[in-house]
Amino acid sequence: MRHQYLVIILSAIVFSSGVCSGQTIVEDFKPSTVNQPGQEYPQVNSQGYARFKILAPEAQSVVVSLGLGGAKGGTTLTKGEKGFWTGTTAGPMDEGFHYYHVTVDGGIFNDPGALNFYGSTRWESGIEIPAHDQDFYALKNVPHGNVQQILFPSKSTNILRRAYVYTPPSYSKEQSKHFPVLYLQHGWGEDETAWSNQGRVNLIMDNLIAEGKIKPFIIVMTYGMTNEAKFGTIASFKIEPFQTVLIDELIPYVDSNFRTIANQSQRAMAGLSMGGMETHTITLNKPHIFSHFALLSGGIYKPEEIKDKSKTKLIFISCGSKENPDRVKNAVTSLKEAGFNAVSYVSEGTGHEFQTWRRSFKELAPLLFKD
Amino acid sequence: MRHQYLVIILSAIVFSSGVCSGQTIVEDFKPSTVNQPGQEYPQVNSQGYARFKILAPEAQSVVVSLGLGGAKGGTTLTKGEKGFWTGTTAGPMDEGFHYYHVTVDGGIFNDPGALNFYGSTRWESGIEIPAHDQDFYALKNVPHGNVQQILFPSKSTNILRRAYVYTPPSYSKEQSKHFPVLYLQHGWGEDETAWSNQGRVNLIMDNLIAEGKIKPFIIVMTYGMTNEAKFGTIASFKIEPFQTVLIDELIPYVDSNFRTIANQSQRAMAGLSMGGMETHTITLNKPHIFSHFALLSGGIYKPEEIKDKSKTKLIFISCGSKENPDRVKNAVTSLKEAGFNAVSYVSEGTGHEFQTWRRSFKELAPLLFKD
Repeated sequence: MRHQYLVIILSAIVFSSGVCSGQTIVEDFKPSTVNQPGQEYPQVNSQGYARFKILAPEAQSVVVSLGLGGAKGGTTLTKGEKGFWTGTTAGPMDEGFHYYHVTVDGGIFNDPGALNFYGSTRWESGIEIPAHDQDFYALKNVPHGNVQQILFPSKSTNILRRAYVYTPPSYSKEQSKHFPVLYLQHGWGEDETAWSNQGRVNLIMDNLIAEGKIKPFIIVMTYGMTNEAKFGTIASFKIEPFQTVLIDELIPYVDSNFRTIANQSQRAMAGLSMGGMETHTITLNKPHIFSHFALLSGGIYKPEEIKDKSKTKLIFISCGSKENPDRVKNAVTSLKEAGFNAVSYVSEGTGHEFQTWRRSFKELAPLLFKD
Repeated sequence: MRHQYLVIILSAIVFSSGVCSGQTIVEDFKPSTVNQPGQEYPQVNSQGYARFKILAPEAQSVVVSLGLGGAKGGTTLTKGEKGFWTGTTAGPMDEGFHYYHVTVDGGIFNDPGALNFYGSTRWESGIEIPAHDQDFYALKNVPHGNVQQILFPSKSTNILRRAYVYTPPSYSKEQSKHFPVLYLQHGWGEDETAWSNQGRVNLIMDNLIAEGKIKPFIIVMTYGMTNEAKFGTIASFKIEPFQTVLIDELIPYVDSNFRTIANQSQRAMAGLSMGGMETHTITLNKPHIFSHFALLSGGIYKPEEIKDKSKTKLIFISCGSKENPDRVKNAVTSLKEAGFNAVSYVSEGTGHEFQTWRRSFKELAPLLFKD
């Protein structure tokens, strides 16, 4: 059981598009949309190549961790004029968001031009490769919900813990209305900032709501305590501490501080990668708490694992086409045959990265809380 | 008029404690409280020395921008075992928060061990020197308000703009209650994240409210558009674009989306450094909008500038003792003689940095919205 998640995580490290195109690079490079204000580099072009430019006049070597497809192969920069090191990826990168860092003379730093995002248990540089379908997570002139930081007391861990709560645009306008809630988990190495920063989940929600495609709901994102699990030690990851925080502390806090519909039929849990592992385990352990389950590149459910079919309203399972789509599809086929309302989704051309999870979320949201 | 702000900003660059103590360094170094999760360096000791440790095996030189007192003098690190460069500041640093960066072979990077904070128009490393009075901004087990990101439409700038809104703990509990509002501005090089990240203004509020020392109010923080003003070109900074965003767009949005008391007597404006300049100009231009004004290391008011004494409920002016406290005190004396309710505050032992502004905010908050 736990072995499958180790495979999922390792696959994030080794996947690669495997394409060496040899195509002519089109010189229409523009600054990445997640650069720091006013920064010209890194840049991306219409084919998905990324170009880097970093100042380090006295350095001996500068290597960017991103390579072809988005893999951790690396792009070695070349020293040019005025102490700037430049270089372009060997081929197009996968659409969407990628984490990266820069190795300067053997030390690991972030690109001074890029914004930072929490991944790999540190704040890393991020770059955004324009996607053909980027409109669904674009910032548009539609009514916007708010993302707020909350600090909730946790007796079991003896500290105040942080969560982010997305409330839809209608939340502040309709003061007597109550809303369903999705508890949404990040992956290993990430934290509670991931879904709204690199996932853009608030913008996906705002756009879906503006288009009338979903019933508005609240989203709660907290730290899944996953970063204790290092490679090779995932078998030692225990669900109980996080399960206690989520079930006994966070949910009661949210239900008493936000206008939620506080019952099982209006409460969902979803997670990506290791957050999927947590979702799988906790939803099975606590069938009276959640009715809608979703695993995004985070494993599968087997029909025999679920005790009470009548209380399970939806099972959603997804991954990128560069992961293991057959496994996802076969699992959903089995669930359907067993009578579950199960849906699969495969993101074309993406791997174990946030573009897969943004797209998965867009497919998932309209299926939640339909009755 | 504008020249005074140039002096204020330049003073932030050149101030220094000027002390070369020669004291014995006490070896009780601990990780800074604003390090990235799990990172051991940078460290600080009980005397206020900072120690850095950065991996860069092949580098020729590594220099940290922080020096004595917190000045931009710099600490040159020395290469030691296993490719790590280490060094300790030449003397104690001022209490509180400091921005810094690391120059590796002539290129400017952030310290991989530290969290980043937006200052100097980029995300910089931050370090926290424990202060004798740090209890007032500590994270405690008291009821906590929320900080939420809002996106508000701005016709004048033709984009959606971001603001952060602090709502006190009672906001979600007392659903029929309305609250006064403080509009609180950051300084040059910073943005709308500064007051809640490095300023810890939400925690200062939560603690003051828990102690019964203040009447709860809402705080709204948005980007002051100040970063267009570079050194030497502050004379070209025009207030009108930001004034339009604040007065015609943000305030109406906040008043229609939050439970505010939407009148002049229950609306305040405050700002630090260039945010003080903005506060000074806008409060004088729009006397029917704000009743309480505060400048934190951000200039002074002269009695003859204020047209309608009866509508001005409070003028608060502060700075650090290493800035120009006599100017602040003299200005407040003149305002009092002219019949204004004016208060001065000087933060002992600090300069043009966030410890001055945290303390100033703590003094200001109890004076707001008293009637």
